[in-house]
Amino acid sequence: MDNLELIREIATPSPSKIVLLVIDGLGGLPNPKTGKTELETAKTPNLDKLAADSICGLIDPVSPGVTPGSTPGHLALFGYDPVKYNIGRGVVAALGIDFELKPDDIAARGNFCTVDSSGLITDRRAGRIPTEKCTELCQLLDEIKIEGVKLFVRPVREHRFAVVFRGERLSPEVSDSDPQQTGVAPKAAKALNPAANTTADIANNFINQARTILAKHQPANMAILRGFSSLPTIPTMDDIYILKPAAIAAYPMYRGLAKLVGMQLLKTGPTITDEFDALKQNYADYDFFFLHIKGTDSAGEDGDFDRKVNILEEIDKALPALTGLKPDVIVVTGDHSTPALLKGHSWHAVPILIYSKWCRADRVGEFSETACTMGGLSRFPATHIMPLAMANALKLAKFGA
Amino acid sequence: MDNLELIREIATPSPSKIVLLVIDGLGGLPNPKTGKTELETAKTPNLDKLAADSICGLIDPVSPGVTPGSTPGHLALFGYDPVKYNIGRGVVAALGIDFELKPDDIAARGNFCTVDSSGLITDRRAGRIPTEKCTELCQLLDEIKIEGVKLFVRPVREHRFAVVFRGERLSPEVSDSDPQQTGVAPKAAKALNPAANTTADIANNFINQARTILAKHQPANMAILRGFSSLPTIPTMDDIYILKPAAIAAYPMYRGLAKLVGMQLLKTGPTITDEFDALKQNYADYDFFFLHIKGTDSAGEDGDFDRKVNILEEIDKALPALTGLKPDVIVVTGDHSTPALLKGHSWHAVPILIYSKWCRADRVGEFSETACTMGGLSRFPATHIMPLAMANALKLAKFGA
Repeated sequence: MDNLELIREIATPSPSKIVLLVIDGLGGLPNPKTGKTELETAKTPNLDKLAADSICGLIDPVSPGVTPGSTPGHLALFGYDPVKYNIGRGVVAALGIDFELKPDDIAARGNFCTVDSSGLITDRRAGRIPTEKCTELCQLLDEIKIEGVKLFVRPVREHRFAVVFRGERLSPEVSDSDPQQTGVAPKAAKALNPAANTTADIANNFINQARTILAKHQPANMAILRGFSSLPTIPTMDDIYILKPAAIAAYPMYRGLAKLVGMQLLKTGPTITDEFDALKQNYADYDFFFLHIKGTDSAGEDGDFDRKVNILEEIDKALPALTGLKPDVIVVTGDHSTPALLKGHSWHAVPILIYSKWCRADRVGEFSETACTMGGLSRFPATHIMPLAMANALKLAKFGA
Repeated sequence: MDNLELIREIATPSPSKIVLLVIDGLGGLPNPKTGKTELETAKTPNLDKLAADSICGLIDPVSPGVTPGSTPGHLALFGYDPVKYNIGRGVVAALGIDFELKPDDIAARGNFCTVDSSGLITDRRAGRIPTEKCTELCQLLDEIKIEGVKLFVRPVREHRFAVVFRGERLSPEVSDSDPQQTGVAPKAAKALNPAANTTADIANNFINQARTILAKHQPANMAILRGFSSLPTIPTMDDIYILKPAAIAAYPMYRGLAKLVGMQLLKTGPTITDEFDALKQNYADYDFFFLHIKGTDSAGEDGDFDRKVNILEEIDKALPALTGLKPDVIVVTGDHSTPALLKGHSWHAVPILIYSKWCRADRVGEFSETACTMGGLSRFPATHIMPLAMANALKLAKFGA
């Protein structure tokens, strides 16, 4: 019995409400000039006040040292073992663009790439063509016809696209055509077991037609595919926690992930204030809210320390709109760290606070990486957040006699 | 290989002695008037002195957020994964009344309940009849005869009783007859697999005879059963740790649990002083002592903050009787938290101290929830206590070359 099964066994419904505020890429690294991280630099009096009334700590989204992608980072926050539920790259790409994947669909992530006159790859990203160009090329590939299967080719961003094959008895057990290196030809997709033979044939048919269509579109004169996958069998949050969960997220990918675990997607505008407004509008109708803020991660990825600081201050200003609703449990954390200094996701543990009437507040009076090191929750795997939130909401029965 | 198997591989006998003092329901929540928990309110100079010489921390008995029953709480303290060794409710009830369960016995927990003229349950606890009445009714049910099986019906407390079926080829794979709700009839016990058909028939035969016998005993005019179970196959502490372990516990249930893992049960009076006396009397004869104090948990369950404080002070006064014996290792902790504010077991992490000459004491100088947050042991699963105690007693060999 894994921990999720244990929690499912003891989950009990109650009227109490939980709000999980995810500040994407929250954790950071100190600015060498000041010795302070983005969160430590930002003036966040509301978060600090909340931390003082909370139990604090640090989470490892996947495991110590492992830098998570957005998908494992979020699955862990929702309580799912992100290694056990490793969602394929194709599915993530399709979810990320709000594509309505059906259970039997096979999705793959595509790259437009450049090949030389001998067909050897010279650039796996075709010079990062603009998204507009990608969209044009996707429209061309979307016209490809293959008997017995319906296919969809949709742009993601720059050279990246998603392709979805819809048909009967398709299998995701197909190897990548992307060789992940230059100087070699794209590989043929191979069936990883006999039941995938048809799907591999379809994939290769698609790739060959794409080669012909793209030939004159230098630098994006070829396409390579990887991460063939289908929607995973994953228990919903309703099923495990007996919650009625809702998601407030401006970015499609996070809406996709929320939907994957059975959350209702709420309508929201793009700004932080819009998102907090959406929480208020829908507060009566659900007992669990996932509120996702993207800007911090984007700023971190751009290496923009000051912009990340500013967005954190903006979140702090908006926070009273959340605390004013008086949720029984408030969790504030991130899905991973995105230090501006590293310009990308990182493995660093992420600060967390859990507020409730029953949380047994520690002496941490500031929401920051350094202060949370002294928190009563200590350092723990992110998959324990949901059980702790459920316990604080008095939604878990006693285990064992 | 799980952790227990690893420890078994490296355990080595030695003359050193370990005392595990379990203060049941030790952890608490702060009194809103003072901001201090029961343990922080109690004057405990001896525990504080011991904490100063110890390495401290906080334990999660099962996993973060999970509120343990007494059985999983104690199994974890003894080093057993409490989810893997999930002991059935029937066995726990039988152990709790000192019933001598044999390996093939099937035990179930019974409730005397009230049914209306249509046989629908109106009260699952028959108005919590007094234990004396329960004892009388158990004597009547104990007379039931079923061919091929010997049965025992024993009172537990109020409406609760235990029934044990002794025979050949019986199986615990039988579903509850207790529907866990009112307004419905008791269910028939069902075999969960074909090998349990005979046992289900026996259980239903018992239930039907009980219905006839109890009919005129309003309000306890029916009985419902749940938690059919048999003694688990569990390695003993001697087998794993090569210890000669003894238990000092005034309450039957904890004696039952101790016996389950192979401890010798020592004679003791009911008071805290009696228990410490028993430790002194038997100190020469064993190398591991489990000393269990129940009063703190009972006070917490009664919501009596002050009584829990008083009992903690009483324990502290008795402590020199333990430290005076100069055990090589002393562990002080609880099997779970029982905050008076919640009037029941809770999920909150439990303070722990481990004293030994080799413990590498941290800077914690007070035995309390807040102080232990800063301890050198940090926050960790309770199943690691025994390996740490064994290591501090120099009873674990090096792992690997």
